[in-house]
Amino acid sequence: MKHLVVRSVLRGLLVNGGRSGRYISTVTAASTAGVLKPTEVWTELRSRYGTSFDVFYWRRMISSNATETAVAEKLKTEKSVEKQAEKGVESFKTSDGTVVSSYWGISKPKILREDGTEWPWNCFMPWETYRSNTAIDLSKHHVPKTFLDKFAYRTVKLLRVPTDIFFQRRYGCRAMMLETVAAVPGMVGGMLLHLRSLRRFQQSGGWIKALLEEAENERMHLMTMVELVQPKWYERLLVLAVQGVFFNAYFVLYLLSPKLAHRITGYLEEEAIHSYTEFLKDIKNGKIENVPAPAIAIDYWRLPKDATLEDAITVIRADEAHHRDVNHFASDIHYQGKELREAPAPLGYH
Amino acid sequence: MKHLVVRSVLRGLLVNGGRSGRYISTVTAASTAGVLKPTEVWTELRSRYGTSFDVFYWRRMISSNATETAVAEKLKTEKSVEKQAEKGVESFKTSDGTVVSSYWGISKPKILREDGTEWPWNCFMPWETYRSNTAIDLSKHHVPKTFLDKFAYRTVKLLRVPTDIFFQRRYGCRAMMLETVAAVPGMVGGMLLHLRSLRRFQQSGGWIKALLEEAENERMHLMTMVELVQPKWYERLLVLAVQGVFFNAYFVLYLLSPKLAHRITGYLEEEAIHSYTEFLKDIKNGKIENVPAPAIAIDYWRLPKDATLEDAITVIRADEAHHRDVNHFASDIHYQGKELREAPAPLGYH
Repeated sequence: MKHLVVRSVLRGLLVNGGRSGRYISTVTAASTAGVLKPTEVWTELRSRYGTSFDVFYWRRMISSNATETAVAEKLKTEKSVEKQAEKGVESFKTSDGTVVSSYWGISKPKILREDGTEWPWNCFMPWETYRSNTAIDLSKHHVPKTFLDKFAYRTVKLLRVPTDIFFQRRYGCRAMMLETVAAVPGMVGGMLLHLRSLRRFQQSGGWIKALLEEAENERMHLMTMVELVQPKWYERLLVLAVQGVFFNAYFVLYLLSPKLAHRITGYLEEEAIHSYTEFLKDIKNGKIENVPAPAIAIDYWRLPKDATLEDAITVIRADEAHHRDVNHFASDIHYQGKELREAPAPLGYH
Repeated sequence: MKHLVVRSVLRGLLVNGGRSGRYISTVTAASTAGVLKPTEVWTELRSRYGTSFDVFYWRRMISSNATETAVAEKLKTEKSVEKQAEKGVESFKTSDGTVVSSYWGISKPKILREDGTEWPWNCFMPWETYRSNTAIDLSKHHVPKTFLDKFAYRTVKLLRVPTDIFFQRRYGCRAMMLETVAAVPGMVGGMLLHLRSLRRFQQSGGWIKALLEEAENERMHLMTMVELVQPKWYERLLVLAVQGVFFNAYFVLYLLSPKLAHRITGYLEEEAIHSYTEFLKDIKNGKIENVPAPAIAIDYWRLPKDATLEDAITVIRADEAHHRDVNHFASDIHYQGKELREAPAPLGYH
């Protein structure tokens, strides 16, 4: 199997055009550093740390320095580029129909699972997968004290009324629709902090990334739910309308009062936890069939191969609990008259 | 030194409240997997792979599953929380004045450099640092053929005129100002792809992350330049105005024609490469003093401790060359009537 991996690396090196030089270079670098031949390093690492190291290894390869080998490789690529330039070709299609640019030197690195099979996802990489901390306290609740808190709490409770009427107990569908909304606040917050960081020439203290991570995580929930429930045309239409309204509303709200915005998101997450708990109830009492978990969920949350819908929903609920913490915490920071960057950013906290 | 690290891990475990359980759990996990005691794993890894492994190790710790230890730890935290709840305390300040939420279980993990000193940055983590591929071809240029290409090219050339007049050869200042603009397209593109992914219930093929990485990387350039040049009040005002116009213009443009938007960014990056080349010339011929590189640049690009401004600018220029490739590639994909998600996303390509 180890040979398989090594061979696939070499294959990677051969097909990766402009990038491959950098791959080779790191293999060299790693070997000189570790006083081991590349293959030795590779097999050694895999034998002890399994696929997770491949990933890390690939990652270093992707972002690593170039050496003579790299230059040599580059020249080789240049030649082929010239050839193509003559033909006026700048990018071509592979057998599977995806566009690959030989000229711009961007190509898909071969990434393997522990079992030697190829990593099937583009939308997330193995080093972004994690095991959810399902031991998190689901019952935590921020008791609204100030006017703003109460306003946030009431607003969220009000928003639940139409949702309950529309979906009733169709939790699969409900979850799918709600995730299309849940992925918005993180993106809006992250973007606005990014722009502020640029305007003020100030660091973000990691909060931009933390909020973007939240948005990314919520989108992964959606990608999981979509595998289970196919949205109908009127649901797609609803998402279009809701996103149009919610994105702009949250954008303005975050500009006016990030304190209130984060509090509302915090309460939204509390409601999400409730919904997923109800979802799990319906799975347990057989109202919803406990189908096998989608492949994407198994890879993203490092679930066992025989994981079920129940397992997937359990980790998703744990994620929501983490987002609840992050957003209430963010609101608390603003309540103390401080900026987010002054407090530790919850990086990788999900 | 190794003991230092181990001790600091343990310290981390003690101070990290709700999170610490997860740290402990992985130390255990890693040890059982590698059939080594945690400290053995740790020292073994450090001795061979240096700090880069710490990083990876920390990363796994941060995103790992909870065990009995975690539960025990959690209970411990819960208790302290109850105590604080009695006092009505939800978050408190540390000695350095930063807010730490004990209730929401979010705290700053202790992360160490190779030399055992504490990681000083919140805005980026060790596992986001990389060595820039400075061997990248700086002269690559997309020859405008179509009308849109020519329009994009002319536009960028036109934009250079006022910039040249305003800054002349004050390249430090110029670079700083331009980075406040350069960090916008990636964020806009990433955000719009994110929202589209939600609306269409479709995966992004990794392009959301790739574009957000670009924005993040450009912001790091800004953070580096700010260490060297302090912006004056009228420059801050200019940034405010320019961002206000550029963000909205690019937002609309990306909605109308991502093809054109990416092409323009591609050409902007080509100009950035030119500016940084001029910058380097002025450093070489002594017009600009070759001061030591800012600490943030040394950590972010893994530069040697004695790196100079010239080294920093060289890697920044290499980054811009990578962004040029990414954006021209993205535009090429659209020219083929395809969507970005159909082509390999340039993740970690910078």
